[in-house]
Amino acid sequence: ARPKVGYLYSGNNTVSIISEHVKRTKVSEIKSMPVVVDEQTTLYDALVSLFLEDVGSIYVLSHGYLAGVISRKDFLKNIMGGTDIHKMPVGLIMTRMPNIVTTYPHETALEAAIKIIEHEVDSLPVVEKFEEKGKEYFKVVGKVSKTNITRLFVELGRQK
Amino acid sequence: ARPKVGYLYSGNNTVSIISEHVKRTKVSEIKSMPVVVDEQTTLYDALVSLFLEDVGSIYVLSHGYLAGVISRKDFLKNIMGGTDIHKMPVGLIMTRMPNIVTTYPHETALEAAIKIIEHEVDSLPVVEKFEEKGKEYFKVVGKVSKTNITRLFVELGRQK
Repeated sequence: ARPKVGYLYSGNNTVSIISEHVKRTKVSEIKSMPVVVDEQTTLYDALVSLFLEDVGSIYVLSHGYLAGVISRKDFLKNIMGGTDIHKMPVGLIMTRMPNIVTTYPHETALEAAIKIIEHEVDSLPVVEKFEEKGKEYFKVVGKVSKTNITRLFVELGRQK
Repeated sequence: ARPKVGYLYSGNNTVSIISEHVKRTKVSEIKSMPVVVDEQTTLYDALVSLFLEDVGSIYVLSHGYLAGVISRKDFLKNIMGGTDIHKMPVGLIMTRMPNIVTTYPHETALEAAIKIIEHEVDSLPVVEKFEEKGKEYFKVVGKVSKTNITRLFVELGRQK
């Protein structure tokens, strides 16, 4: 039962606020703090961070730059497979660059949400790119997950 | 830079479609198939379902009705704690009714999203309520997760 009229009254700008929000909200406005560990960290110590911070995935750094991602599912898979979590470093089991889907602070929340859905990942590291001697490096400056998108959806829906 | 005009042209109904969608989409329209196991199932067998179906949480049934929920985090916590996953039934470690946040097919996606954010859960079982001799029973008919909400957000944002 959508209105068939060509014009909608928007005295309080409700409608324009909602549509602008969906299209204009930036990753930088909705991102969370990322949880990061160095690639030498053992699975056990990374798991402790996972629980303490109550996150679903952890970003792994090498020399301060993004090197990989490790998720609850990766931990479970390795534990089930008999990996010694007290000895194995995260660097050996993580999903490794360039196979990580990232986003940038200036991208829109919508662009980030599309990446999350199309690549079937739980979250995207928010990165800033640096170049040195023709090589690219990525600094992790945040994280956008399905939780951030769901929160934004709630915020949109509550605007009245 | 929001338009200050009192009327917005909506010849293609874009704006009204977006705002109506946020407010009117029902849980029944966005729900997924739930993965369910009986409360006697071992943690190991439940984990196999978790991986095969690639879901983040599993709903546990007792006599066909919702009895509990178990998530990747619950599995990890128990494995770390030394639980014998080949012997322990999910019924003994699950989050148990009535401590489960549920939703109904006729609720809106927005109401479901608000529950997910406020109760800090990954998903809600979509249930239908039955009463017998003054007791309430819940049949699981679906699942709404942050993935479903993110997918809806993408759908809204792409409407043009």
